[in-house]
Amino acid sequence: MKIIVKVTLKNGVLDPQGKAIRRALASLGFEGVEDVRQGKLIELDIAETDPEKARAAALDMCEKLLANTVIENYTVELA
Amino acid sequence: MKIIVKVTLKNGVLDPQGKAIRRALASLGFEGVEDVRQGKLIELDIAETDPEKARAAALDMCEKLLANTVIENYTVELA
Repeated sequence: MKIIVKVTLKNGVLDPQGKAIRRALASLGFEGVEDVRQGKLIELDIAETDPEKARAAALDMCEKLLANTVIENYTVELA
Repeated sequence: MKIIVKVTLKNGVLDPQGKAIRRALASLGFEGVEDVRQGKLIELDIAETDPEKARAAALDMCEKLLANTVIENYTVELA
């Protein structure tokens, strides 16, 4: 079963990578880019076939490893 | 207008970050994780309000900066 985990920085947390992208876009001539935030997209292929168990396992993985819950939010989607 | 860009490695491209996550999950006791791939999630806030123009601009940004099209695929979604 395939699971998509999205990890994004919480509001208010500085995002230097996003800022660098924004500046680079401006220097390439893209105008009107007001904000850029960069997050992580993690695709998991797991053996579990029960959707509820798979989701529970993925949430547990987020709490324990994939996301730093002090500064990051995460969402889990079954694909 | 908010745009979500997903950048993922093409099939067949080695993903050492994904492998590291997989090993770390295994060492934490998560069994049955068959594959992990890590990509990037980029949220753009742009001034353009016309959806078609916004999408076209985002695709152009992907080609020119956000994705390395030799090894990465990208998708653009208006949010």
